[in-house]
Amino acid sequence: QGTRDHPPAQAALRDRLLAAVVACFKRHGAAAIDTPVLELRETLTGKYGEEAKLIYELQDQGGELLALRYDLTVPFARYLAMNKITNMKRYHVAKVYRRDNPATTRGRYREFYQCDFDIAGQFDPMIPDAECLKIVHEILSDLQLGDFLIKVNDRRILNGVFAVCGIPESKFITTCSTVDKLDKIPWQDVKNEMVGEKGLSPEAADRIGEYVQLHGGLDLIERLLQDPKLSQNKLAKEGLGDMKLLFEYLTLFGITGKISFDLSLARGLDYYTGVIFEAVLLQQENDHVEEPVSVGSVAGGGRYDGLVGMFDPKGRKVPCVGVSIGIERIFSILEQRAKASGEKVRATETEVLVATPQKQLLAARLKLISELWDAGIKAEMFYKKDPKLLKQLQYCEDTGIPLAAIVGEQELTDGVVKLRDVATREEVRM
Amino acid sequence: QGTRDHPPAQAALRDRLLAAVVACFKRHGAAAIDTPVLELRETLTGKYGEEAKLIYELQDQGGELLALRYDLTVPFARYLAMNKITNMKRYHVAKVYRRDNPATTRGRYREFYQCDFDIAGQFDPMIPDAECLKIVHEILSDLQLGDFLIKVNDRRILNGVFAVCGIPESKFITTCSTVDKLDKIPWQDVKNEMVGEKGLSPEAADRIGEYVQLHGGLDLIERLLQDPKLSQNKLAKEGLGDMKLLFEYLTLFGITGKISFDLSLARGLDYYTGVIFEAVLLQQENDHVEEPVSVGSVAGGGRYDGLVGMFDPKGRKVPCVGVSIGIERIFSILEQRAKASGEKVRATETEVLVATPQKQLLAARLKLISELWDAGIKAEMFYKKDPKLLKQLQYCEDTGIPLAAIVGEQELTDGVVKLRDVATREEVRM
Repeated sequence: QGTRDHPPAQAALRDRLLAAVVACFKRHGAAAIDTPVLELRETLTGKYGEEAKLIYELQDQGGELLALRYDLTVPFARYLAMNKITNMKRYHVAKVYRRDNPATTRGRYREFYQCDFDIAGQFDPMIPDAECLKIVHEILSDLQLGDFLIKVNDRRILNGVFAVCGIPESKFITTCSTVDKLDKIPWQDVKNEMVGEKGLSPEAADRIGEYVQLHGGLDLIERLLQDPKLSQNKLAKEGLGDMKLLFEYLTLFGITGKISFDLSLARGLDYYTGVIFEAVLLQQENDHVEEPVSVGSVAGGGRYDGLVGMFDPKGRKVPCVGVSIGIERIFSILEQRAKASGEKVRATETEVLVATPQKQLLAARLKLISELWDAGIKAEMFYKKDPKLLKQLQYCEDTGIPLAAIVGEQELTDGVVKLRDVATREEVRM
Repeated sequence: QGTRDHPPAQAALRDRLLAAVVACFKRHGAAAIDTPVLELRETLTGKYGEEAKLIYELQDQGGELLALRYDLTVPFARYLAMNKITNMKRYHVAKVYRRDNPATTRGRYREFYQCDFDIAGQFDPMIPDAECLKIVHEILSDLQLGDFLIKVNDRRILNGVFAVCGIPESKFITTCSTVDKLDKIPWQDVKNEMVGEKGLSPEAADRIGEYVQLHGGLDLIERLLQDPKLSQNKLAKEGLGDMKLLFEYLTLFGITGKISFDLSLARGLDYYTGVIFEAVLLQQENDHVEEPVSVGSVAGGGRYDGLVGMFDPKGRKVPCVGVSIGIERIFSILEQRAKASGEKVRATETEVLVATPQKQLLAARLKLISELWDAGIKAEMFYKKDPKLLKQLQYCEDTGIPLAAIVGEQELTDGVVKLRDVATREEVRM
């Protein structure tokens, strides 16, 4: 349940999509690493907050207690700590697993690809963070997905907001996960959850509401820096100062047009400590699509300065910031588009079909195709001793093979091959 | 236990290796499919014989009973049956899982990549089978792994041998898995297992021994076709006839020099029904390697005409033949070689480092690198506000970045960039 096979046309499309994402990661100088799908359960424990119940655990078979990885971030942090690496820029494209209620129509599966780019190391503020946003901007632009918006916030600002609204620190994380629902449910429902489930006072909830419904750009940052309450809070001040710096760098990158400082953005995971962001598609701008897919967020990430330290025996911290591209949702959109436009995705790359027009020429075909393969040419032939020429040419048309190399009795005698252009039917002897 | 992280240099080497294998599969006209890592347990049950105890099972969490895939062949057969596909040439590169005792020095892990190519469909005998052997030959030649040998046998010949030696049909499969150990333990031990564990008579075991220690080429096939006992057995006769045809096709491919018809080859898995084969490296021919890695088989496969039918409600069969490349073992060899030769594998592809020679030029770097990224150039910069030029150039040398694009105060004033060739130290203003 919640998994799927990718048939050839889908696999080819997905490979192209992943190639575009990886090309961007490489353009930014990232190296690939690969980690096992299996992690020790204890590695994943206590990293995901309320979502931890979705972890797939393996049967205890008298050995180690294992689980399937839930994301690529925690394994990366475990890798850094285990190898005492304090400085690294890596990407990782692989499948992750969540025992979620699959909503496959919205492109949500229990097994899905993640494409992660992360920068680990102690650097000057917001430079790597800005690069992560640039990467999201590049990938979403490259893929021509239509208009998009990247929402940015900072956990320090949120925590500052909670503090000045009178929320005890022990309730920051749980309040955060309620705020995170603001993009799906209206403020009144969020408030009800805060008061009913999380035990906040209605007044505190209302004070939070005034802040978290704000969004804007540099102007909003400046305004909040002047806010009589927030400006008194150390965390909020730090976060707002960095947010201003971030916008400065994003201006140099020329991408602020697609960036929104949005105080309702909270992100579900526990491990974020600073900047957080999430990209959403604004609408489906493709006329061919009859029923636009609702896809939600297509990329997200943030800063997690404490995670690596959780895996180090001495608790040594390695600051990290990273981005994850929501490749499955993007794939759903591209697939829907391809379907709607009737565009035929070739599943193979075969350049030439080796064909024979008469019977008893299997040996000639085997010899010729062997030469072609050895010369690096992508070639196929029928696995029948005596296939009909018409069927062979029809196969070329059906599967998009552009050329047929035909060896008949006459060609064999003359020591030539007849090369046929399948589309134009032109033939040359060579 | 038995899994590993691949750090960047390893990941880069492995990506190159996988790319070479995939290029060969595409050259032969295969399409990619992708299936989930998770399969229903019942899909895997009864397909792997004695090896089934190595299947990784997931915890029963009140949903479906799941397991991690054990190979890529059974998921492929399940895929064909589920989608009623009777004709397909596909490749699949992905990780599989076996709860085996890891022998990591021999390149054996619990999580490892498999690279599979399979041809499904009802065709004339031995044409797709010959192509599978051609693929093994191409890949092992392309990778320049040194001398190798592809052993070929046929389950029908083995079963014929068992029959004429007086073994009851119910013991064919278990006898087969004992014969399969002949490449690791001497005949006497194999005989002891047959008699002691499998309950064969010593005479029957000796009769089997006479056959299964034979190996050769076309001459041996001809001799066995004349064998007074074997030639009377329908299965053996069929198998030997097809083996002769296979050698005919392999002669046309020009690869019989590396092929050995070897009656000791049995292959461990239950599902094979016809031709089986396995490629082994003959020796480590690389002088640089101090301690040659013992790696065993590097590719294997065979015909499994009954597997798809096991997943079809009406038992409809789809004949299949396929090959699996033992990429992890090949990787171990290449890695050892790279280490021994001191060859440095670049983990990134960065073309240019954007550098500044004076302080307070971060904005200039951010502007320039943004332009480079947008132009598709692979570029990096330091995440410090004011890095030292020497450190920046040193980083280029350490990581193999060939160019540095330097913007200093003078360059800014003149509206140019100084491009430095890191190796030659030549500089041009542009």
